[in-house]
Amino acid sequence: MTQDLDPAALDQLFRSARTQNAWQDRPIPDTKLQDLYDLLKYGPTSANSSPARFVFIRTAEGKAKLKPALSEGNIAKTMTAPVTAIVAYDPAFYEQLPKLFPHTDARSWFSDNPSLAEVTAFRNGTLQGAYLIIAARALGLDTGAMSGFDNAKVDAAFFADTGWKSNFLVNLGYGDPTGLFERSPRLSFDEAVRLE
Amino acid sequence: MTQDLDPAALDQLFRSARTQNAWQDRPIPDTKLQDLYDLLKYGPTSANSSPARFVFIRTAEGKAKLKPALSEGNIAKTMTAPVTAIVAYDPAFYEQLPKLFPHTDARSWFSDNPSLAEVTAFRNGTLQGAYLIIAARALGLDTGAMSGFDNAKVDAAFFADTGWKSNFLVNLGYGDPTGLFERSPRLSFDEAVRLE
Repeated sequence: MTQDLDPAALDQLFRSARTQNAWQDRPIPDTKLQDLYDLLKYGPTSANSSPARFVFIRTAEGKAKLKPALSEGNIAKTMTAPVTAIVAYDPAFYEQLPKLFPHTDARSWFSDNPSLAEVTAFRNGTLQGAYLIIAARALGLDTGAMSGFDNAKVDAAFFADTGWKSNFLVNLGYGDPTGLFERSPRLSFDEAVRLE
Repeated sequence: MTQDLDPAALDQLFRSARTQNAWQDRPIPDTKLQDLYDLLKYGPTSANSSPARFVFIRTAEGKAKLKPALSEGNIAKTMTAPVTAIVAYDPAFYEQLPKLFPHTDARSWFSDNPSLAEVTAFRNGTLQGAYLIIAARALGLDTGAMSGFDNAKVDAAFFADTGWKSNFLVNLGYGDPTGLFERSPRLSFDEAVRLE
Protein backbone atom coordinates (compact mmCIF):
# COMPACT_ATOMS: atom_id res chain seq x y z
CA MET A 1 0.00 0.00 0.00
CA THR A 2 2.93 2.36 0.39
CA GLN A 3 4.30 2.49 -3.15
CA ASP A 4 3.59 5.19 -5.67
CA LEU A 5 1.68 3.94 -8.70
CA ASP A 6 3.87 3.90 -11.79
CA PRO A 7 4.07 7.14 -13.80
CA ALA A 8 1.87 5.79 -16.61
CA ALA A 9 -0.92 5.11 -14.11
CA LEU A 10 -0.62 8.61 -12.63
CA ASP A 11 -0.82 9.98 -16.18
CA GLN A 12 -3.93 7.90 -16.94
CA LEU A 13 -5.72 9.00 -13.76
CA PHE A 14 -4.72 12.65 -13.57
CA ARG A 15 -1.90 14.13 -15.64
CA SER A 16 -2.82 13.10 -19.19
CA ALA A 17 -6.55 12.51 -18.69
CA ARG A 18 -8.72 15.12 -20.35
CA THR A 19 -12.40 16.01 -20.32
CA GLN A 20 -13.58 14.70 -23.69
CA ASN A 21 -16.01 16.48 -26.00
CA ALA A 22 -16.18 13.96 -28.88
CA TRP A 23 -16.46 10.21 -28.82
CA GLN A 24 -15.32 7.22 -30.82
CA ASP A 25 -18.09 4.96 -32.12
CA ARG A 26 -17.27 2.30 -29.55
CA PRO A 27 -19.85 1.09 -27.04
CA ILE A 28 -19.39 0.38 -23.34
CA PRO A 29 -20.67 -3.09 -22.39
CA ASP A 30 -22.98 -3.23 -19.37
CA THR A 31 -20.43 -5.48 -17.64
CA LYS A 32 -18.02 -2.53 -17.67
CA LEU A 33 -20.62 -0.38 -15.89
CA GLN A 34 -20.90 -3.07 -13.23
CA ASP A 35 -17.10 -3.10 -12.88
CA LEU A 36 -17.17 0.70 -12.59
CA TYR A 37 -19.71 0.65 -9.77
CA ASP A 38 -17.82 -2.17 -8.04
CA LEU A 39 -14.76 0.09 -7.84
CA LEU A 40 -16.29 3.46 -7.02
CA LYS A 41 -18.49 2.04 -4.26
CA TYR A 42 -15.38 1.55 -2.11
CA GLY A 43 -14.51 5.24 -2.00
CA PRO A 44 -14.99 6.62 1.52
CA THR A 45 -18.10 8.51 2.63
CA SER A 46 -19.15 9.96 5.97
CA ALA A 47 -20.45 7.15 8.22
CA ASN A 48 -20.34 4.96 5.09
CA SER A 49 -23.53 6.80 4.12
CA SER A 50 -23.07 6.17 0.39
CA PRO A 51 -25.80 8.65 -0.60
CA ALA A 52 -25.03 8.71 -4.35
CA ARG A 53 -27.33 7.03 -6.82
CA PHE A 54 -26.47 6.60 -10.48
CA VAL A 55 -28.42 6.30 -13.71
CA PHE A 56 -26.43 4.99 -16.66
CA ILE A 57 -28.21 6.13 -19.81
CA ARG A 58 -27.25 3.93 -22.80
CA THR A 59 -30.37 3.90 -24.98
CA ALA A 60 -31.74 6.37 -27.51
CA GLU A 61 -34.94 6.52 -25.45
CA GLY A 62 -33.01 7.44 -22.33
CA LYS A 63 -31.01 10.08 -24.17
CA ALA A 64 -34.24 11.56 -25.57
CA LYS A 65 -35.57 11.88 -22.01
CA LEU A 66 -32.43 13.73 -20.98
CA LYS A 67 -32.03 16.02 -23.98
CA PRO A 68 -34.60 18.73 -23.09
CA ALA A 69 -32.77 19.36 -19.80
CA LEU A 70 -29.36 19.98 -21.37
CA SER A 71 -27.71 23.33 -21.99
CA GLU A 72 -27.24 23.95 -25.70
CA GLY A 73 -23.47 23.46 -25.56
CA ASN A 74 -23.80 20.06 -23.90
CA ILE A 75 -26.29 18.47 -26.31
CA ALA A 76 -24.10 17.14 -29.14
CA LYS A 77 -21.46 15.51 -26.95
CA THR A 78 -24.06 14.00 -24.66
CA MET A 79 -26.21 12.60 -27.47
CA THR A 80 -23.14 10.92 -29.02
CA ALA A 81 -21.55 9.58 -25.82
CA PRO A 82 -22.02 5.81 -25.43
CA VAL A 83 -23.19 6.33 -21.85
CA THR A 84 -24.24 9.38 -19.85
CA ALA A 85 -24.25 8.93 -16.08
CA ILE A 86 -26.59 10.96 -13.95
CA VAL A 87 -24.81 11.36 -10.62
CA ALA A 88 -27.67 11.79 -8.16
CA TYR A 89 -28.25 11.35 -4.45
CA ASP A 90 -31.00 9.98 -2.28
CA PRO A 91 -32.14 12.65 0.22
CA ALA A 92 -33.42 9.77 2.39
CA PHE A 93 -30.04 8.01 2.29
CA TYR A 94 -30.10 7.64 6.07
CA GLU A 95 -32.79 4.96 5.84
CA GLN A 96 -29.96 2.64 4.64
CA LEU A 97 -27.70 3.35 7.62
CA PRO A 98 -28.89 0.46 9.80
CA LYS A 99 -27.42 -1.74 7.04
CA LEU A 100 -24.44 0.43 6.00
CA PHE A 101 -23.25 1.49 9.47
CA PRO A 102 -24.65 -1.24 11.71
CA HIS A 103 -22.57 -0.71 14.85
CA THR A 104 -24.44 2.41 15.99
CA ASP A 105 -27.71 4.27 15.39
CA ALA A 106 -26.43 6.66 12.73
CA ARG A 107 -29.88 6.97 11.17
CA SER A 108 -30.99 9.18 14.05
CA TRP A 109 -28.16 11.66 13.41
CA PHE A 110 -29.89 12.63 10.17
CA SER A 111 -33.55 11.69 10.37
CA ASP A 112 -34.37 14.60 12.70
CA ASN A 113 -31.87 17.06 11.19
CA PRO A 114 -32.86 17.90 7.59
CA SER A 115 -30.11 20.48 7.06
CA LEU A 116 -27.39 18.03 8.18
CA ALA A 117 -28.96 15.33 6.01
CA GLU A 118 -29.00 17.62 2.97
CA VAL A 119 -25.39 18.80 3.26
CA THR A 120 -24.22 15.24 3.97
CA ALA A 121 -26.07 13.88 0.93
CA PHE A 122 -24.72 16.58 -1.35
CA ARG A 123 -21.12 16.52 -0.08
CA ASN A 124 -20.78 12.75 0.00
CA GLY A 125 -22.79 12.18 -3.17
CA THR A 126 -20.39 14.60 -4.88
CA LEU A 127 -17.36 12.72 -3.51
CA GLN A 128 -18.84 9.58 -5.04
CA GLY A 129 -19.24 11.37 -8.36
CA ALA A 130 -15.51 12.13 -8.29
CA TYR A 131 -14.81 8.49 -7.47
CA LEU A 132 -16.83 7.59 -10.57
CA ILE A 133 -14.68 9.88 -12.74
CA ILE A 134 -11.39 8.49 -11.44
CA ALA A 135 -12.59 4.87 -11.38
CA ALA A 136 -13.73 5.22 -15.00
CA ARG A 137 -10.25 6.44 -15.95
CA ALA A 138 -8.71 3.57 -14.00
CA LEU A 139 -10.79 1.22 -16.19
CA GLY A 140 -9.58 2.85 -19.40
CA LEU A 141 -12.66 5.00 -20.03
CA ASP A 142 -12.70 8.68 -20.82
CA THR A 143 -15.07 11.05 -19.05
CA GLY A 144 -16.74 14.41 -19.56
CA ALA A 145 -18.43 15.87 -16.49
CA MET A 146 -21.04 18.62 -16.81
CA SER A 147 -23.23 20.74 -14.60
CA GLY A 148 -24.79 22.68 -17.47
CA PHE A 149 -28.34 21.31 -17.34
CA ASP A 150 -31.68 21.92 -15.63
CA ASN A 151 -31.68 19.81 -12.48
CA ALA A 152 -35.43 20.16 -11.94
CA LYS A 153 -36.17 18.82 -15.44
CA VAL A 154 -33.87 15.84 -14.91
CA ASP A 155 -35.48 15.11 -11.55
CA ALA A 156 -38.97 15.28 -13.08
CA ALA A 157 -38.01 13.04 -16.01
CA PHE A 158 -36.03 10.40 -14.09
CA PHE A 159 -36.76 10.59 -10.37
CA ALA A 160 -40.50 11.18 -9.95
CA ASP A 161 -40.77 7.67 -8.44
CA THR A 162 -37.69 7.63 -6.19
CA GLY A 163 -37.30 11.21 -4.96
CA TRP A 164 -33.59 11.12 -5.89
CA LYS A 165 -32.01 14.48 -6.77
CA SER A 166 -29.67 15.04 -9.70
CA ASN A 167 -26.24 16.47 -8.91
CA PHE A 168 -24.19 16.45 -12.12
CA LEU A 169 -23.70 14.48 -15.33
CA VAL A 170 -20.73 12.50 -16.64
CA ASN A 171 -20.39 11.36 -20.24
CA LEU A 172 -18.50 8.07 -20.50
CA GLY A 173 -16.86 6.44 -23.49
CA TYR A 174 -13.68 6.42 -25.52
CA GLY A 175 -12.70 9.94 -26.45
CA ASP A 176 -11.97 11.26 -29.90
CA PRO A 177 -9.02 13.59 -29.25
CA THR A 178 -9.89 15.75 -32.27
CA GLY A 179 -12.63 17.21 -30.03
CA LEU A 180 -10.25 18.37 -27.32
CA PHE A 181 -9.73 21.98 -26.37
CA GLU A 182 -6.31 23.20 -25.31
CA ARG A 183 -5.74 22.41 -21.66
CA SER A 184 -6.40 25.35 -19.35
CA PRO A 185 -3.90 26.31 -16.64
CA ARG A 186 -4.20 25.25 -13.01
CA LEU A 187 -3.52 27.26 -9.88
CA SER A 188 0.02 26.91 -8.58
CA PHE A 189 0.76 25.26 -5.23
CA ASP A 190 1.34 28.68 -3.69
CA GLU A 191 -1.99 29.98 -4.93
CA ALA A 192 -4.09 27.06 -3.68
CA VAL A 193 -2.22 25.66 -0.68
CA ARG A 194 -1.07 26.90 2.69
CA LEU A 195 1.31 25.00 4.96
CA GLU A 196 0.82 25.23 8.72
CA MET B 1 -5.39 5.61 -22.20
CA THR B 2 -7.70 2.68 -22.84
CA GLN B 3 -6.19 -0.03 -20.67
CA ASP B 4 -7.39 -1.00 -17.24
CA LEU B 5 -4.86 -0.32 -14.52
CA ASP B 6 -3.42 -3.52 -13.12
CA PRO B 7 -5.37 -5.20 -10.29
CA ALA B 8 -2.84 -4.14 -7.63
CA ALA B 9 -3.36 -0.50 -8.59
CA LEU B 10 -7.15 -0.85 -8.43
CA ASP B 11 -6.73 -2.42 -4.99
CA GLN B 12 -4.50 0.43 -3.82
CA LEU B 13 -6.91 3.12 -5.04
CA PHE B 14 -10.25 1.56 -4.13
CA ARG B 15 -10.63 -2.09 -3.18
CA SER B 16 -8.08 -2.55 -0.41
CA ALA B 17 -7.74 1.08 0.66
CA ARG B 18 -9.26 1.81 4.04
CA THR B 19 -10.02 4.89 6.10
CA GLN B 20 -7.29 4.81 8.74
CA ASN B 21 -7.77 5.62 12.41
CA ALA B 22 -4.21 5.10 13.70
CA TRP B 23 -0.89 6.15 12.22
CA GLN B 24 2.66 4.91 12.03
CA ASP B 25 5.29 7.29 13.40
CA ARG B 26 6.46 8.16 9.90
CA PRO B 27 6.40 11.74 8.62
CA ILE B 28 5.33 13.01 5.20
CA PRO B 29 7.98 15.26 3.62
CA ASP B 30 6.75 18.58 2.26
CA THR B 31 7.90 17.50 -1.21
CA LYS B 32 5.26 14.75 -1.07
CA LEU B 33 2.56 17.36 -0.37
CA GLN B 34 3.73 19.26 -3.44
CA ASP B 35 3.54 16.04 -5.49
CA LEU B 36 0.05 15.45 -4.10
CA TYR B 37 -1.19 18.87 -5.17
CA ASP B 38 0.50 18.50 -8.56
CA LEU B 39 -1.64 15.40 -9.19
CA LEU B 40 -4.99 16.42 -7.72
CA LYS B 41 -4.97 19.80 -9.47
CA TYR B 42 -5.57 18.03 -12.80
CA GLY B 43 -8.92 16.56 -11.75
CA PRO B 44 -11.75 18.17 -13.72
CA THR B 45 -13.90 21.01 -12.37
CA SER B 46 -16.71 23.02 -13.90
CA ALA B 47 -15.24 25.67 -16.21
CA ASN B 48 -11.85 24.73 -14.72
CA SER B 49 -13.02 26.78 -11.73
CA SER B 50 -10.73 24.95 -9.27
CA PRO B 51 -12.43 26.45 -6.22
CA ALA B 52 -10.75 24.21 -3.61
CA ARG B 53 -8.10 25.56 -1.32
CA PHE B 54 -6.04 23.37 0.99
CA VAL B 55 -4.25 23.81 4.29
CA PHE B 56 -1.76 21.08 5.14
CA ILE B 57 -1.29 21.12 8.91
CA ARG B 58 2.01 19.49 9.90
CA THR B 59 3.11 21.35 13.04
CA ALA B 60 2.09 21.03 16.67
CA GLU B 61 1.06 24.69 16.61
CA GLY B 62 -1.24 24.08 13.64
CA LYS B 63 -2.76 21.00 15.27
CA ALA B 64 -3.39 22.98 18.46
CA LYS B 65 -5.29 25.58 16.43
CA LEU B 66 -7.44 22.83 14.92
CA LYS B 67 -8.09 20.79 18.06
CA PRO B 68 -10.88 22.88 19.66
CA ALA B 69 -12.98 22.49 16.49
CA LEU B 70 -12.85 18.68 16.40
CA SER B 71 -15.55 16.29 17.52
CA GLU B 72 -14.38 14.20 20.48
CA GLY B 73 -14.07 11.01 18.41
CA ASN B 74 -11.82 12.69 15.86
CA ILE B 75 -9.26 14.23 18.24
CA ALA B 76 -6.81 11.39 18.89
CA LYS B 77 -6.39 10.27 15.29
CA THR B 78 -6.08 13.85 14.06
CA MET B 79 -3.52 14.87 16.68
CA THR B 80 -1.37 11.84 15.78
CA ALA B 81 -1.67 12.03 11.96
CA PRO B 82 1.51 13.37 10.32
CA VAL B 83 -0.60 15.79 8.27
CA THR B 84 -4.21 16.93 8.45
CA ALA B 85 -5.55 18.59 5.32
CA ILE B 86 -8.31 21.15 5.58
CA VAL B 87 -10.22 20.87 2.30
CA ALA B 88 -11.70 24.34 1.87
CA TYR B 89 -13.01 26.47 -0.95
CA ASP B 90 -12.76 30.10 -1.95
CA PRO B 91 -16.28 31.61 -2.26
CA ALA B 92 -14.71 34.24 -4.56
CA PHE B 93 -13.14 31.55 -6.78
CA TYR B 94 -14.56 33.26 -9.88
CA GLU B 95 -12.04 36.08 -9.56
CA GLN B 96 -9.47 33.56 -10.88
CA LEU B 97 -11.50 32.64 -13.97
CA PRO B 98 -9.93 35.20 -16.34
CA LYS B 99 -6.72 33.18 -15.78
CA LEU B 100 -8.21 29.67 -15.42
CA PHE B 101 -10.77 29.84 -18.26
CA PRO B 102 -9.36 32.56 -20.50
CA HIS B 103 -11.33 31.92 -23.70
CA THR B 104 -14.61 33.42 -22.44
CA ASP B 105 -15.90 35.69 -19.68
CA ALA B 106 -16.83 32.96 -17.19
CA ARG B 107 -16.32 35.31 -14.26
CA SER B 108 -19.59 37.05 -15.08
CA TRP B 109 -21.55 33.75 -14.85
CA PHE B 110 -20.89 33.74 -11.12
CA SER B 111 -20.09 37.28 -9.97
CA ASP B 112 -23.74 38.35 -10.23
CA ASN B 113 -25.26 35.03 -9.17
CA PRO B 114 -24.34 34.24 -5.54
CA SER B 115 -26.41 31.06 -5.33
CA LEU B 116 -24.79 29.61 -8.48
CA ALA B 117 -21.37 30.65 -7.17
CA GLU B 118 -21.99 28.95 -3.81
CA VAL B 119 -23.22 25.63 -5.22
CA THR B 120 -20.41 25.61 -7.79
CA ALA B 121 -17.78 26.28 -5.12
CA PHE B 122 -19.14 23.57 -2.83
CA ARG B 123 -19.71 20.93 -5.53
CA ASN B 124 -16.40 21.42 -7.30
CA GLY B 125 -14.41 22.00 -4.13
CA THR B 126 -15.80 18.68 -2.91
CA LEU B 127 -14.80 16.93 -6.14
CA GLN B 128 -11.28 18.25 -5.58
CA GLY B 129 -11.35 16.86 -2.04
CA ALA B 130 -12.10 13.44 -3.50
CA TYR B 131 -9.25 13.89 -5.98
CA LEU B 132 -6.99 14.59 -2.99
CA ILE B 133 -8.06 11.33 -1.32
CA ILE B 134 -7.47 9.22 -4.44
CA ALA B 135 -4.26 11.04 -5.44
CA ALA B 136 -2.89 10.47 -1.93
CA ARG B 137 -3.57 6.76 -2.28
CA ALA B 138 -1.95 6.78 -5.71
CA LEU B 139 1.16 8.19 -4.01
CA GLY B 140 1.19 5.46 -1.38
CA LEU B 141 -0.39 7.49 1.42
CA ASP B 142 -3.30 6.44 3.59
CA THR B 143 -6.19 8.79 4.29
CA GLY B 144 -8.90 9.37 6.84
CA ALA B 145 -11.59 11.86 5.83
CA MET B 146 -13.86 13.47 8.42
CA SER B 147 -16.72 15.91 8.58
CA GLY B 148 -17.10 15.71 12.36
CA PHE B 149 -15.90 19.19 13.33
CA ASP B 150 -17.18 22.73 13.79
CA ASN B 151 -16.76 24.48 10.44
CA ALA B 152 -17.26 27.95 11.90
CA LYS B 153 -14.48 27.43 14.43
CA VAL B 154 -12.09 26.22 11.72
CA ASP B 155 -12.98 29.19 9.53
CA ALA B 156 -12.38 31.61 12.41
CA ALA B 157 -9.05 29.98 13.32
CA PHE B 158 -7.62 29.57 9.81
CA PHE B 159 -9.50 31.74 7.31
CA ALA B 160 -10.17 35.10 8.96
CA ASP B 161 -7.76 36.68 6.45
CA THR B 162 -8.79 34.89 3.24
CA GLY B 163 -12.54 34.31 3.58
CA TRP B 164 -12.07 30.66 2.56
CA LYS B 165 -14.67 28.21 3.91
CA SER B 166 -13.85 24.81 5.37
CA ASN B 167 -15.52 21.81 3.75
CA PHE B 168 -14.06 18.66 5.30
CA LEU B 169 -10.82 17.30 6.77
CA VAL B 170 -8.50 14.53 5.61
CA ASN B 171 -5.84 12.97 7.79
CA LEU B 172 -2.82 11.84 5.76
CA GLY B 173 -0.03 9.46 6.68
CA TYR B 174 0.91 5.82 6.78
CA GLY B 175 -1.80 3.85 8.51
CA ASP B 176 -1.40 1.50 11.43
CA PRO B 177 -3.79 -1.31 10.53
CA THR B 178 -4.32 -2.24 14.19
CA GLY B 179 -6.61 0.81 14.31
CA LEU B 180 -8.92 -0.39 11.56
CA PHE B 181 -12.56 -1.21 12.08
CA GLU B 182 -14.18 -4.05 10.18
CA ARG B 183 -15.16 -2.87 6.73
CA SER B 184 -18.81 -1.92 6.43
CA PRO B 185 -20.94 -3.23 3.56
CA ARG B 186 -21.68 -1.23 0.42
CA LEU B 187 -24.94 -0.93 -1.51
CA SER B 188 -25.28 -3.46 -4.31
CA PHE B 189 -25.37 -2.39 -7.96
CA ASP B 190 -29.13 -2.97 -8.01
CA GLU B 191 -29.65 -0.78 -4.95
CA ALA B 192 -27.62 2.18 -6.18
CA VAL B 193 -27.79 2.05 -9.98
CA ARG B 194 -30.46 2.19 -12.66
CA LEU B 195 -29.85 1.40 -16.32
CA GLU B 196 -31.79 3.36 -18.94
